[in-house]
Amino acid sequence: MKLEEKIAKKKAVIGVIGLGYIGLSLVDAFGKGGYRLVGYDYNEMKINSLKKKKPYFNFFDHNLIFSLLDDKMLEVSADSSVLKNVDIIIISVSTSLDQNRNPNLTNLHAAFETINKYLKKDQLIILQSSTYPGTTEEEILPIIKKSPFKIGKDIFLAHVPEVADIGNPDFSFMHVPRIVSGITPKCAELAGQLYRQMGCEIFICSSTRVAESAKLLQNSFRLVNIALINEMKVMFDKMGVDVWEVIEAASCKPFGFTPFYPGPGIGGDCIPVTPLYLIWKAKMTEGPTSLLEQAVHVNEATPLYVMNKIIQGLNERKKSLREAKLLILGVGYKKDVNEIHESPAIKILLLLKNMFADVQYHDPYVEQLKLDSKYNLKSIELNYNKLDEYDAVIILTGHSSYDWKKVVQYSNLVIDTRNVTSNIKHPKKKVIKG
Amino acid sequence: MKLEEKIAKKKAVIGVIGLGYIGLSLVDAFGKGGYRLVGYDYNEMKINSLKKKKPYFNFFDHNLIFSLLDDKMLEVSADSSVLKNVDIIIISVSTSLDQNRNPNLTNLHAAFETINKYLKKDQLIILQSSTYPGTTEEEILPIIKKSPFKIGKDIFLAHVPEVADIGNPDFSFMHVPRIVSGITPKCAELAGQLYRQMGCEIFICSSTRVAESAKLLQNSFRLVNIALINEMKVMFDKMGVDVWEVIEAASCKPFGFTPFYPGPGIGGDCIPVTPLYLIWKAKMTEGPTSLLEQAVHVNEATPLYVMNKIIQGLNERKKSLREAKLLILGVGYKKDVNEIHESPAIKILLLLKNMFADVQYHDPYVEQLKLDSKYNLKSIELNYNKLDEYDAVIILTGHSSYDWKKVVQYSNLVIDTRNVTSNIKHPKKKVIKG
Repeated sequence: MKLEEKIAKKKAVIGVIGLGYIGLSLVDAFGKGGYRLVGYDYNEMKINSLKKKKPYFNFFDHNLIFSLLDDKMLEVSADSSVLKNVDIIIISVSTSLDQNRNPNLTNLHAAFETINKYLKKDQLIILQSSTYPGTTEEEILPIIKKSPFKIGKDIFLAHVPEVADIGNPDFSFMHVPRIVSGITPKCAELAGQLYRQMGCEIFICSSTRVAESAKLLQNSFRLVNIALINEMKVMFDKMGVDVWEVIEAASCKPFGFTPFYPGPGIGGDCIPVTPLYLIWKAKMTEGPTSLLEQAVHVNEATPLYVMNKIIQGLNERKKSLREAKLLILGVGYKKDVNEIHESPAIKILLLLKNMFADVQYHDPYVEQLKLDSKYNLKSIELNYNKLDEYDAVIILTGHSSYDWKKVVQYSNLVIDTRNVTSNIKHPKKKVIKG
Repeated sequence: MKLEEKIAKKKAVIGVIGLGYIGLSLVDAFGKGGYRLVGYDYNEMKINSLKKKKPYFNFFDHNLIFSLLDDKMLEVSADSSVLKNVDIIIISVSTSLDQNRNPNLTNLHAAFETINKYLKKDQLIILQSSTYPGTTEEEILPIIKKSPFKIGKDIFLAHVPEVADIGNPDFSFMHVPRIVSGITPKCAELAGQLYRQMGCEIFICSSTRVAESAKLLQNSFRLVNIALINEMKVMFDKMGVDVWEVIEAASCKPFGFTPFYPGPGIGGDCIPVTPLYLIWKAKMTEGPTSLLEQAVHVNEATPLYVMNKIIQGLNERKKSLREAKLLILGVGYKKDVNEIHESPAIKILLLLKNMFADVQYHDPYVEQLKLDSKYNLKSIELNYNKLDEYDAVIILTGHSSYDWKKVVQYSNLVIDTRNVTSNIKHPKKKVIKG
């Protein structure tokens, strides 16, 4: 049976490399679609969690994954040999940065070495991870070219950038159009067929390089706009203007304006990471990167602004940081999620620890938080009427489960970086916007 | 009769200072609404044009203005004494930059001196011009405080930032919500009443400073996003990727992305100008401006990129700029409008002239173009089948009236900065995206 027919008849076996949020979403969607799947992740803790039916994301329903495992429609393993003989391999490993904030390509390279072992005739390889323009052509294609299979004829290579709005149920797998690209038109066509079969609209690009660039443009757009509003927050604060009110007023314009909101910094797997892949690649081709780099710097400096607001608030009360007892509320990088990758909370906690502040945190979804080799914190139990034991309570993530009225009522001082307390009446100088 | 009643019964006489596009839109809208108006502009040429029924904007229907003049419901003059005894004064003078790209406050200051002469009891002063945060409080309020009238009681001061999408009929005066603010709540209330009476939705801010800031945030958002895509254009070009295809692909994402498009630079009265008012003010209060300034630099450098593309194209044909005969198509800053304020075409024409190129231009809406004290050009007559007389044809504005197929057919070389020729087949290297 040819691959097209296998896809159409749902006889194709799909292997997924990388069982993070995107990997699980793929398994969930193709599992619902009736395909048999195998999942490989080098991280044994993830594999064991899945086998023991322990969810690891609070914002993703793992139940279908667990039933697929029960029904033997899904096999997961930390041993890549499960990928032997699969018809389709989707690479959805996460991309990250090294200590110099350059791309850490370890996960991608490991995935490419893995596929190299399991290449077979009539197979479709799809790169789903976000990465720099050129990855598919420059890194995966040469591997395939060394194999006995002819690209676009015996074997097919495509790039379909991932799209996700974590924690937003409005945009489930099927409801997000997919950018589809391939090394040859046939490669793109097969990948397009697979996603179309799942109900996705698809947009076919002329090259994998364009698809890789499109994903980075989307992320760079968000990075730069968040940086702009983080810069404006400080700028307007110095003029005695509340940026949140300015955004609300500006948002009444029915064209040409999209509101973005300031925060303590940026976090997550995508926005703080992938634009740095673009900058890294652009430097190799001597392209300009000044604006994008400036945006990175602005966001990276934002935790320091929050620090200053904490220091100002304590100073008003004649307290130094090293005399202060502080509580951070929320460490997830985003409201209502337990994801802490690149979370600004980690940076702010480290800044405070390094100034010898006595700081604790609470997050309903994050039990433990490893700041670095030295500090490993545990979430405290939250007792609203004991908040007055802290000199200041610092809101870093606006989780819906918090009772902000009580937070303001019982705290001595609140630093609110998310504007969640704006409608709560309070004595003067009790709440500082951070 | 109290001012509120005069507004409600349309007995209030409205004076407008500055008869640019915004001033004329105000006259048009309040004229339609049945108010009697006077218009003052120091520029006698504008006044004479209006009196002689000669339109000066190709994108604005002047007919109602002309009938209002006929019906004596509108009087226009270059003598400010027409403003004597008006109930409402709206300042809608244009704001611009001086030679150092700092705010040129001449027009605003002249308007403030003018109102100072015609202050009267029970009068509403509305600043509509875009300007730096603090203008209303720091510049107009002190003038009023020196008068015998008490602010918020005898006289009222408001700021209602202008909103316009020039040449877009979807957003006429009544269809754009207005940000309304006043020195006192009563000041905002009266201004709000006036605009609500015209059918506008209104959004009341807590201070004129917030309203001024909101307008600048809207413009800064556009400035930065255009800069981002102009930077990306060059970055992707160096990687061999077409930015236009990348934008099209990225735009299939249904959330978190808004497409902006590259061009030869930015122009118009707002986007290149007002963010520099914000930067200027932010520096006084030691606020950060690095990202916004970088965006300004990127846009300012964009004409040079277009120059490079012209040079590359000519170089391929072994021609230097000083040997070349060039034609620019379109000099308006925006499609289908005759507005040339800050237009990148002026900068590119000057760059070419300074390299001794033999350059001409055509624009259906702009008969003459003064580049500087030395160069004053006239639009040529366009004859498509004589385009081969030029070594290169450079598209700077994508006016709808052009026949792009013919442009490509008859030209030796096309530099297309607006992607208007993307669907036209052509021999290799005949069209360069600029």
